[in-house]
Amino acid sequence: MEKEKKINASVEATSNKQVIYREPVRGSLKETHLGVRTSSERLKADEDSGAIAVKNLYLACDPYNLNLIKFSAQLGSPIPGYGVARVLESGHPNFKKGDLVWGMTGWEEYSLITAPESCFKIEHTDVPLSYYTGLLGMPGVTAYAGFFEVSSPKKGETVFISAAAGAVGQLVGQFAKLLGCYVVGSAGSKEKVDLLKNKFGFDDAFNYKEEQDLDAVLKRCFPEGIDVYFDNVGGKMLDAVLPNMKLRGRITVCGMISQYSLEQPEGVHNLMNLLLKRVRMEGFVVSDHYHLYPKFLEMVLPLIREGKIVYMEDIAEGLKNGPAALVGVFSGRNVGKQVVVVSRE
Amino acid sequence: MEKEKKINASVEATSNKQVIYREPVRGSLKETHLGVRTSSERLKADEDSGAIAVKNLYLACDPYNLNLIKFSAQLGSPIPGYGVARVLESGHPNFKKGDLVWGMTGWEEYSLITAPESCFKIEHTDVPLSYYTGLLGMPGVTAYAGFFEVSSPKKGETVFISAAAGAVGQLVGQFAKLLGCYVVGSAGSKEKVDLLKNKFGFDDAFNYKEEQDLDAVLKRCFPEGIDVYFDNVGGKMLDAVLPNMKLRGRITVCGMISQYSLEQPEGVHNLMNLLLKRVRMEGFVVSDHYHLYPKFLEMVLPLIREGKIVYMEDIAEGLKNGPAALVGVFSGRNVGKQVVVVSRE
Repeated sequence: MEKEKKINASVEATSNKQVIYREPVRGSLKETHLGVRTSSERLKADEDSGAIAVKNLYLACDPYNLNLIKFSAQLGSPIPGYGVARVLESGHPNFKKGDLVWGMTGWEEYSLITAPESCFKIEHTDVPLSYYTGLLGMPGVTAYAGFFEVSSPKKGETVFISAAAGAVGQLVGQFAKLLGCYVVGSAGSKEKVDLLKNKFGFDDAFNYKEEQDLDAVLKRCFPEGIDVYFDNVGGKMLDAVLPNMKLRGRITVCGMISQYSLEQPEGVHNLMNLLLKRVRMEGFVVSDHYHLYPKFLEMVLPLIREGKIVYMEDIAEGLKNGPAALVGVFSGRNVGKQVVVVSRE
Repeated sequence: MEKEKKINASVEATSNKQVIYREPVRGSLKETHLGVRTSSERLKADEDSGAIAVKNLYLACDPYNLNLIKFSAQLGSPIPGYGVARVLESGHPNFKKGDLVWGMTGWEEYSLITAPESCFKIEHTDVPLSYYTGLLGMPGVTAYAGFFEVSSPKKGETVFISAAAGAVGQLVGQFAKLLGCYVVGSAGSKEKVDLLKNKFGFDDAFNYKEEQDLDAVLKRCFPEGIDVYFDNVGGKMLDAVLPNMKLRGRITVCGMISQYSLEQPEGVHNLMNLLLKRVRMEGFVVSDHYHLYPKFLEMVLPLIREGKIVYMEDIAEGLKNGPAALVGVFSGRNVGKQVVVVSRE
């Protein structure tokens, strides 16, 4: 109620292309659940409204978007998502016209952000702006907090990362290498496995789709066991990892992408290993860790500038290609972080 | 090799009743896996042997015994287990004749303990000696370490304990009440549920065998969710608890008794809640926490003397009744901590 009262936005006739939520998603996300339309209305943020009106530049495609769609999207309205945007009008004291921000916005050319307190102002523009949808945005803080804060990693430990070629996984692997860990990743294609080994500097990597016996490949990669499992997928891989954990290992549950599209989640049978090996398994969500963002930037910006962290994006041009790009994330079609370019300004 | 060289035990002809491991255990433990015999030999601990020869007084029956039998017992030899014993001869500088100890011994009248360093000397005898198989022994430290060290409990939090009438569960519940938590326990009979509510001071308790819908009963007991789940059973109860955890809840995996007798462990489907609720799930074993034993005694002995902690034992008289007593633990036949009296001296 308070919020609604404060916002005193006005509507201006203009063209605003949007990706809207057309049909309720049950199992997996399909392109038919989404639609592209051009609205002739655009919301403006009046002075003291507390809101900001923005022009969206880049949108992030993450597994997380499916939860956003399922739990926050309104049928017939643009789907929400993380993005990078330019402030056109500000009714909020923290922002002024021309500022660049990243945070929760809509899949459309122009958005009204009614709670801009949760957006981050972009101060450093000597790196590609699109990076703020990934490496320097939500997935970046996710990798940083999930690895350094939740996983309690130590130099020399063994680290296994699933969905390792994804936005979060490729960073966790590089952070782990920088710390001096032995790092192995799994991914779903030969191309991604090659990238992990040759571009991201992983010690080893495998294509889980080509392995009949996940337990055997984990034993081959980690003859002495796994200290840290950074879990992005859950399900069968988690079950295979559990008996391969080392004493006092840690399983950081960052995502369970293998389960998101199932109506009934799979059963995990090997939890007894938590007891036998004194393993700590912990879920986390990045929003609890955003206070670390300045500390994270301080670490990661120099590493990017010095080329000590590499980062790969898979770019889809234009909102009209957005639905296909987003759906592709769930089948692992993208190589590197999937980004939708709305406008290069 | 070192150990074998050091032990210079001799054999004396005498009578030594023993519970031996007769047949390999696959699924659940049955009385036919064990046998009672009287041996005519008895090992003695010679000076400087590093071993101690003891007369066993009380033996503990815990779910843990099944793992000991499966992984440490030798066919044809007495099964190992925790117990309270009197030192008859000592070849170890830490112990002398007449000392009372608790620790790993054998299910027999007389044992030779070859690594007595892992035994604890009993200093306080103004409490029943049998308590050192439970409240003041391994299960006591388990409850103490698992609750205070692993579960990070806070006053006012909600605590759920499965197998709550068992040796560990009844203590965890009382520790939680003393801390000012809201405590609910599950058990497998009306009698145990009554004990939890009327003797051990739990706020509520239920008989899981009579509940069709574990989720519904947990929601009724914890309308706002569970902060700490002290898990002694695993399986279906764990699966029902997961969606009922509160944000940043903790699941302490102390045991998974529902799974020990299964050839294939059950699948747990609701692990996604670890992520959604940022739950930490952690296994522990008591042997990592024995350094806390003096601190534990300092807290618990006054509480026992002041009657602020109550404790229940289920006593089986004589080694010949040992196999039935031990098997009964896995079907929940016992009420309170199951103890086998070998000798009252």
